[in-house]
Amino acid sequence: MSTQQSLAERSAELFRSVQAHICDGLEAIDGKARFKSDEWNRADLGGQKGGGGLTRILAGGSVFEKAGVNFSQVQGTMAADFAAKLGAPREEVPFYATGVSLVIHPFSPMIPTTHANWRFLQLGEKQWFGGGADMTPYYLEDEDATHFHSTMKGICDKYSPDYYPRFKKWCDEYFYLPHRQETRGIGGLFFDYVGRDDGADLEAFFPFVRDLGLAFTEQYLPIVARRKDTPFGEEQKKFQLLRRGRYVEFNLLYDRGTHFGLQTNGRIESILMSLPAVVHWDYCPEVLPGSREEYLIKTLQKPREWV
Amino acid sequence: MSTQQSLAERSAELFRSVQAHICDGLEAIDGKARFKSDEWNRADLGGQKGGGGLTRILAGGSVFEKAGVNFSQVQGTMAADFAAKLGAPREEVPFYATGVSLVIHPFSPMIPTTHANWRFLQLGEKQWFGGGADMTPYYLEDEDATHFHSTMKGICDKYSPDYYPRFKKWCDEYFYLPHRQETRGIGGLFFDYVGRDDGADLEAFFPFVRDLGLAFTEQYLPIVARRKDTPFGEEQKKFQLLRRGRYVEFNLLYDRGTHFGLQTNGRIESILMSLPAVVHWDYCPEVLPGSREEYLIKTLQKPREWV
Repeated sequence: MSTQQSLAERSAELFRSVQAHICDGLEAIDGKARFKSDEWNRADLGGQKGGGGLTRILAGGSVFEKAGVNFSQVQGTMAADFAAKLGAPREEVPFYATGVSLVIHPFSPMIPTTHANWRFLQLGEKQWFGGGADMTPYYLEDEDATHFHSTMKGICDKYSPDYYPRFKKWCDEYFYLPHRQETRGIGGLFFDYVGRDDGADLEAFFPFVRDLGLAFTEQYLPIVARRKDTPFGEEQKKFQLLRRGRYVEFNLLYDRGTHFGLQTNGRIESILMSLPAVVHWDYCPEVLPGSREEYLIKTLQKPREWV
Repeated sequence: MSTQQSLAERSAELFRSVQAHICDGLEAIDGKARFKSDEWNRADLGGQKGGGGLTRILAGGSVFEKAGVNFSQVQGTMAADFAAKLGAPREEVPFYATGVSLVIHPFSPMIPTTHANWRFLQLGEKQWFGGGADMTPYYLEDEDATHFHSTMKGICDKYSPDYYPRFKKWCDEYFYLPHRQETRGIGGLFFDYVGRDDGADLEAFFPFVRDLGLAFTEQYLPIVARRKDTPFGEEQKKFQLLRRGRYVEFNLLYDRGTHFGLQTNGRIESILMSLPAVVHWDYCPEVLPGSREEYLIKTLQKPREWV
């Protein structure tokens, strides 16, 4: 790794390789479907200039119903109002953003959905890292949540004892649906604006982001492997489809990444690939007392320590 | 109609009777399913005091997959930030709101979805009416759009030649998805804040709102009647499910009514009954040139005069 390259360039290179690494891992375990790739340029999107991305989608697999892994590297000028929201002065300001973002929706309700994102941003004079990963089970197995968390905790602890508790808590707070009074899933890590105002050393933070990106397969695929042959019926499938409704509610009502993409005239189909292929909303659905469905819902009402 | 009753009370009474009238009409044409009723009190919703509502839902009918018709009459104290957004001083302020709100999702893609809402609000010293109705077809028949619009235009013209053009345009602007660069459907009427700052006579506006509410069945049910036996296949159904995704996107990303309900701790299941029962999101779905699907999409890209 040459230090002659800027952090912005090295981040983009990292995220490209993380994308390839994760797609390979997902294809291997799916065994049937392959990722399709769409390379896109902002210049093709209504005259927006600067950069583009590579959207990779796997649909209709034997394990994964819809999995999207996006890479993007864009630059341009950000509108004054939006810049102010991100901590810049209220004026038009140049920005640069690169990241990888993924959402994986398995077909089976016995396998959790997961999301991850790591990004590097420059806005005027400021630059920062953001990112994280969280998991959304339907039929929660405690050991899966513990595996997911402990993989990430292992990486955190190599860098700072402070990272895991801080970023775990941030994740619980971020992926929260106030109108449902529950978290989106069993959490994971979340961090943002690292290096923007906190004096963090971004050169020292870069390898941490790299390790998280490259460990994603290790934290998720063993869970897929042990749940993918678990039998399920219509009732379990129905519960999954209803829970996916909460996923859509979070992404459209609250997710900053989604709103950032829409407000910066991002590529819509790449942003909204996070939405599941099939979703149900029933009026006042109920779960049976003592059921596994109820266990999930109760668990999501209060963040838990998994490690 | 006694003038001893306040406009707030008479509005609530009107909206209750509009709800009953519309539910009767929908049940008659469905012929199979009946509306279920949930009476709720804000006092039961986490200690919020003041009023409540009657949520009526018809699910799994022969014509209607999910139809919700809500009545509510609530009062309380609005948070300073939210009050400021609605034009009041930035301080806690008492509010009163009553309205009827409906969303009808037929099973067949050959029948349009429709939404309507009429409401009366008091916020501190101010009071106003808001409301409207719009229609979202999947397989657009021009004559249906014309019928929908001309029924409402007939009512508008009885009150003011200015109403139809003004409220029709407002509807096209309101039900717009900027990220998709299309309107939600073929429009209808939309108005808000009538009487708040424009000096409108609310006593004179009340019968207009009443006429709109009572004419809803006349503007929508003839369309249902002539399309409900039109055959369709999997391809048409699939297109409907994808288009419903746009409906969800609008309601969660942009709809003021949804955000108002969520921010005032409304009854979540009554607010989100607007979401369709089954929704699909595919990555980059395509339509054939010259197809009816393409005709719909092109029509939604530019508001049209239907009368």
